[in-house]
Amino acid sequence: MELWFTEQHSKDLRFLIKVTKQVYSVKSDFQNICIFDSEEFGRFLVIDDYLMLTEKDEFIYHEMISHVPISTNLNLKNILVIGGGDGGTVREIVKYSNDMKIDVCEIDSVVVDACKKYLPSVACGFNDKRVKIYFEDGTKFVKNINNKYDLIIIDSTDPFGPGEALFTEEFYYDCFNALTENGILVNQHESVFYSEYIQQMIKVNKNLKNIFPICEIYQAHIPTYPSGHWLFGFASKTIQPTIDFKSEGWNNLDIKTKYYNTNLHIGAFMLPNYVKEKFS
Amino acid sequence: MELWFTEQHSKDLRFLIKVTKQVYSVKSDFQNICIFDSEEFGRFLVIDDYLMLTEKDEFIYHEMISHVPISTNLNLKNILVIGGGDGGTVREIVKYSNDMKIDVCEIDSVVVDACKKYLPSVACGFNDKRVKIYFEDGTKFVKNINNKYDLIIIDSTDPFGPGEALFTEEFYYDCFNALTENGILVNQHESVFYSEYIQQMIKVNKNLKNIFPICEIYQAHIPTYPSGHWLFGFASKTIQPTIDFKSEGWNNLDIKTKYYNTNLHIGAFMLPNYVKEKFS
Repeated sequence: MELWFTEQHSKDLRFLIKVTKQVYSVKSDFQNICIFDSEEFGRFLVIDDYLMLTEKDEFIYHEMISHVPISTNLNLKNILVIGGGDGGTVREIVKYSNDMKIDVCEIDSVVVDACKKYLPSVACGFNDKRVKIYFEDGTKFVKNINNKYDLIIIDSTDPFGPGEALFTEEFYYDCFNALTENGILVNQHESVFYSEYIQQMIKVNKNLKNIFPICEIYQAHIPTYPSGHWLFGFASKTIQPTIDFKSEGWNNLDIKTKYYNTNLHIGAFMLPNYVKEKFS
Repeated sequence: MELWFTEQHSKDLRFLIKVTKQVYSVKSDFQNICIFDSEEFGRFLVIDDYLMLTEKDEFIYHEMISHVPISTNLNLKNILVIGGGDGGTVREIVKYSNDMKIDVCEIDSVVVDACKKYLPSVACGFNDKRVKIYFEDGTKFVKNINNKYDLIIIDSTDPFGPGEALFTEEFYYDCFNALTENGILVNQHESVFYSEYIQQMIKVNKNLKNIFPICEIYQAHIPTYPSGHWLFGFASKTIQPTIDFKSEGWNNLDIKTKYYNTNLHIGAFMLPNYVKEKFS
């Protein structure tokens, strides 16, 4: 028997991973969570039929969503991760020895428990004593917080289902207020190769631009995400991500990464014409 | 009925494109050539079961294999394309108004004829009067040519089957001799995400380094190629691809591109750690 996990990357494109075993499956109050084993990609996490991460390439997404903003301000004191229940983003943040507080606001405790048990190489960062997890709705969590976080990372699922509210202008407005005067917001920004999400992500980008004076987009090669050409949004009050980032300072920290480096940091903001045009 | 073209990107990963119609299928003296229509990707070309190009994203590969080297020397007089029977690379080269000669050495005339008939938006460059096509074996073609070409673009299929000889040290040695004193060689360099070709491409890269004093690798996001993270090799006698390239000069030419731009040119050489390590 052969078992193939199948994701529809667009209506005419299917992406199939050969599964050796289903190791976990549960319906939480918010979503369907499944974990599979495969030879090629190691263990992988699927939420509501969409592949969230694989052990083989999750490092790319998690390094790029965290080290890019952190390298632009090496004196961060308070970081908020919204979503990120798998722990991969936190694992990258705790590589810094700063005396920082890292709050994680994840709506679904079942994701965290499942990843701690079945994906320990991803969830290991949750053990760091600087990390505090709140099992709450991120949109409610940021309301009425003022001038607290130096960095908010929105490590969400796609812009539909439980994650949808994390792409709205109202939410970005609340994040803006929750950020300190040099605050940075980074979010996963989908892909614009397949037509399904293009209009939606153009709108999301406008939502960000309506709130933040600085808005840039950067990219990474993530083989298991649709098109493999994944985008991230970098929004901030004052910090420009390629001018203000501290190349030498970051390199002196000697943080081990498999994808990110300070040259690539610059290159990630150098977008193809067809992507730039979408957000111009 | 549903018809899905299926490519095995690795033994445990399948990539399926929904086909609306098969428009062409022939077995030439060298390979099986098929052309399909699809809604998502437009028309696409398959050789020996491997997807070669789709109308939707072929511009990325063809722009990156041609404009990157040409922008480093805007005075090219003689260009040789080995392979490239679909015409996409030539279409990009003829955007330059230089008084240049463009030789194409393609082993299989059937590919050229099929693309002229069924993929005219790709093959259109063949109509330019500066282009001359030789239907010969590229490895034999370059032997005994001396100091002639300013640029050789190896626009080959994968490193097995008819294309295999185009990845050997002997062939690169002949190309070196066929190049002028500032000559450049560019080749498609596969991907190193899936294990299938990694060792082979490390060897290919060493073959290039054994012959050329300057060898760099650059990357592009090509969604329909395995992993979407495609590499190109840039080898030259004297020209350094990010230092010697003429950003202002190229921009003054006002050449229309959908992927390539002079910022991205620099970014394309900024590789992730895990890719750099493979070729160090």
